[in-house]
Amino acid sequence: MARSSAQPPESAPVAVVGAGYAGLSAALALHDRGVPALVLEGADRVGGRVHSGRTEHGVVIDHGGQWVGPTQHRLLAWAERFGCETFPTWETGRAVELWHDGAVREFTGSGPDDGPGVAEYHDAVARIDALAAGIDLDAPASCPRAAEWDAETVHSFFRRTVACSEARRRLDLAVQGVWSAEPREISVLHLLFYVASAGGFDQLMDTAGAAQDSRFAAGAQAPALAAAERLGDAVLLGTRVDAVEQRGDGVVVRTSRGPVRAERVVVATPPPATAGIRFEPALPTARQRWVQRSAMGDVAKVHVVYPRPFWRDAGLSGIASLYGADATGVVFDNSPRGAEFGVLAAFVYGDRLRAWSAMSARDRRAEVLGTLARLFGEQARNPLEYLEKIWPTDEWVRGGYAANPAPGSWIAHGAEGWRAPCGRVHWAGSETASAWHGYIDGAISSGERAAREVLAAL
Amino acid sequence: MARSSAQPPESAPVAVVGAGYAGLSAALALHDRGVPALVLEGADRVGGRVHSGRTEHGVVIDHGGQWVGPTQHRLLAWAERFGCETFPTWETGRAVELWHDGAVREFTGSGPDDGPGVAEYHDAVARIDALAAGIDLDAPASCPRAAEWDAETVHSFFRRTVACSEARRRLDLAVQGVWSAEPREISVLHLLFYVASAGGFDQLMDTAGAAQDSRFAAGAQAPALAAAERLGDAVLLGTRVDAVEQRGDGVVVRTSRGPVRAERVVVATPPPATAGIRFEPALPTARQRWVQRSAMGDVAKVHVVYPRPFWRDAGLSGIASLYGADATGVVFDNSPRGAEFGVLAAFVYGDRLRAWSAMSARDRRAEVLGTLARLFGEQARNPLEYLEKIWPTDEWVRGGYAANPAPGSWIAHGAEGWRAPCGRVHWAGSETASAWHGYIDGAISSGERAAREVLAAL
Repeated sequence: MARSSAQPPESAPVAVVGAGYAGLSAALALHDRGVPALVLEGADRVGGRVHSGRTEHGVVIDHGGQWVGPTQHRLLAWAERFGCETFPTWETGRAVELWHDGAVREFTGSGPDDGPGVAEYHDAVARIDALAAGIDLDAPASCPRAAEWDAETVHSFFRRTVACSEARRRLDLAVQGVWSAEPREISVLHLLFYVASAGGFDQLMDTAGAAQDSRFAAGAQAPALAAAERLGDAVLLGTRVDAVEQRGDGVVVRTSRGPVRAERVVVATPPPATAGIRFEPALPTARQRWVQRSAMGDVAKVHVVYPRPFWRDAGLSGIASLYGADATGVVFDNSPRGAEFGVLAAFVYGDRLRAWSAMSARDRRAEVLGTLARLFGEQARNPLEYLEKIWPTDEWVRGGYAANPAPGSWIAHGAEGWRAPCGRVHWAGSETASAWHGYIDGAISSGERAAREVLAAL
Repeated sequence: MARSSAQPPESAPVAVVGAGYAGLSAALALHDRGVPALVLEGADRVGGRVHSGRTEHGVVIDHGGQWVGPTQHRLLAWAERFGCETFPTWETGRAVELWHDGAVREFTGSGPDDGPGVAEYHDAVARIDALAAGIDLDAPASCPRAAEWDAETVHSFFRRTVACSEARRRLDLAVQGVWSAEPREISVLHLLFYVASAGGFDQLMDTAGAAQDSRFAAGAQAPALAAAERLGDAVLLGTRVDAVEQRGDGVVVRTSRGPVRAERVVVATPPPATAGIRFEPALPTARQRWVQRSAMGDVAKVHVVYPRPFWRDAGLSGIASLYGADATGVVFDNSPRGAEFGVLAAFVYGDRLRAWSAMSARDRRAEVLGTLARLFGEQARNPLEYLEKIWPTDEWVRGGYAANPAPGSWIAHGAEGWRAPCGRVHWAGSETASAWHGYIDGAISSGERAAREVLAAL
């Protein structure tokens, strides 16, 4: 089992920085090939942006990443390997949208069939998918129009190409929901790459058959915990990495519990956390710039626990989209598999998160419960439990879901700075993945790719 | 005199991180008020992005910042205080522009009177100045159109508002020259703020009467060296700061030479360097995001030394602008005051820097000398000396001239994250300045502002 107060050994063939899914995946792939890898994790738990827990009433919830979809083959393989059961995300009933002018509309399926801007939204999505089809997932900056796409923010792109302001409202919320960023913060190229990486815009947006298809009965951290269990005392918790010093004959990793010598190092932290590690010699400029210009998205996830999923009585699915002044952008029914309790999960993103997180704890709660009451009735005001996870304040992750490169970063620094090894240092993390970039699945495949690099070099 | 191998004292009333102009200014302002401040500098010299030297032939050159202009009151005050002489930048004669199609045009004064796109360029500059007039220098994100301006890249803005592609070429080079960044990397709001901060677009661009008005006879580092001399052994070189830990009763600054306890700390590094310091408790999210989303510009400065300024014989000023495939974007006559030698300084920016710095040293030299030969004749191919300073690879500064916030950063994080003190930690650096932001003058005023904050708090 992962150790949290042990001194690290003096040396290991491979050191892995970070025990999120990417780091665990790299270590497990090496372990499966008989190469011991020591995993160094600053936090007191594994899983990174995936963190499951039980509420006071014993309800399993996921404070972070939670879903798995049918084309997420690597995560599904882990679920299978470690015997982690999944179940379909609840979407039976009518979803609700609360429009900016106060109008409330209900619909079934993955989105409204009509309503302001719906047709134009679908047209825009079709155009985005068509453009995304031209992206090379292993070299996003290499396609002919990459320079043009990386020079424009998604905000400007929508203003320029989508005449209907109501459709733009829908697109803006989609961007907030998928990238946990405002459309001004990412480039068109990054949007297109991300869409291509998932297999299409609706793969990112939809529930059944797409990214939000299913959940883990024991929480999405379960496969990570099982992998850590398999790795045993090769996982060191509470061990912060301060520096990575490459020498001619190896690497010295300086940790808060002492140095570790290794042949190779896999750094599997989100890019902004990499900026806090001192590298000797300094990383190549392209890698430095890539890291510097990648910032975590801004998201908070609020769980509200009720005695039962009362909204289902009224034929509501618990899914909602909010286009107005509410802090909440999107709501899902996150009740446990057997629905012994009713759980709603409210997501707060970007600008709305900044305003909401500046409120007092009491006001934040009142704000979210008020929104849920308008959506689902007055019962929503009296939950059994209310839990918040504001990811930007997480000591180790400092945001979510993923880091987004600033406009211009792909074209200027992507070719060399994205994930190319720097000497004996290899890079993992969902931000280095080609398929399902930014998702748990991408984290796992990135660790496996880094492990292959290390095996080829050892 | 600054010490480079001493153990720091156990404590000081104020610790200043970084001995660039901002850090020296903060320490000097405190020193002048009788408050001792200890300056901790990782490099083995003071001056930061300002670094003067002598070539083998004894010619004074500035590898980094070098100019002073008439409205840069704080830098002029330091020049006066420390008796550092200045002299006008050489601009007698005809400047040259090498157009993208190979055409060569000559002109006198600060820019061409005619030529492709000249009139439209001036129209665009007038519009920029008019928009910049609405910026509040102490709160750039507060103006009514800030959200709109911060959501669009300068690249998109020029495409949308400047129909003439030839004018856009001129604007693009202006942006590269002033921000050492590509137009896609900065937002319209940051451009407007910077213009307002300098007092107008032409203040940024012009020589006589503007930002490039004069140079320092002994190099632009001379005032910094004099300030450090005044501070004596309160300046510790070769002392890297790894962590800043705030406690209830003070701050512990962890350095590569041991800890220092202080009442207050002024962090006066460029924002990206701040990301390498571990803060306990973690900085507020807005400050973290601001730092994460600010990246240094990309610039190299090449000095080529000749026996004499031979271009002056042909009536050329040595000033050139290049719009084609050359690595060099802009050339200045950087000869010493008495012109005992002739010196040309070639600036390489952004994308062109990335391509050029990937070449071998031999090819880089041949490329620049070939450009100078086309501009000033074959004599340019045979210099006495050739010196490069590629700022992105500088161990401590890692870019230049300044850090530019990514699009969307001002509006999302600027209000709280720009320069508001975080407990006992205060912020200095040219990137925190209102007037002459990004310039030496702004660095000095930022240090003085931080010193005022500290004095008010002690």
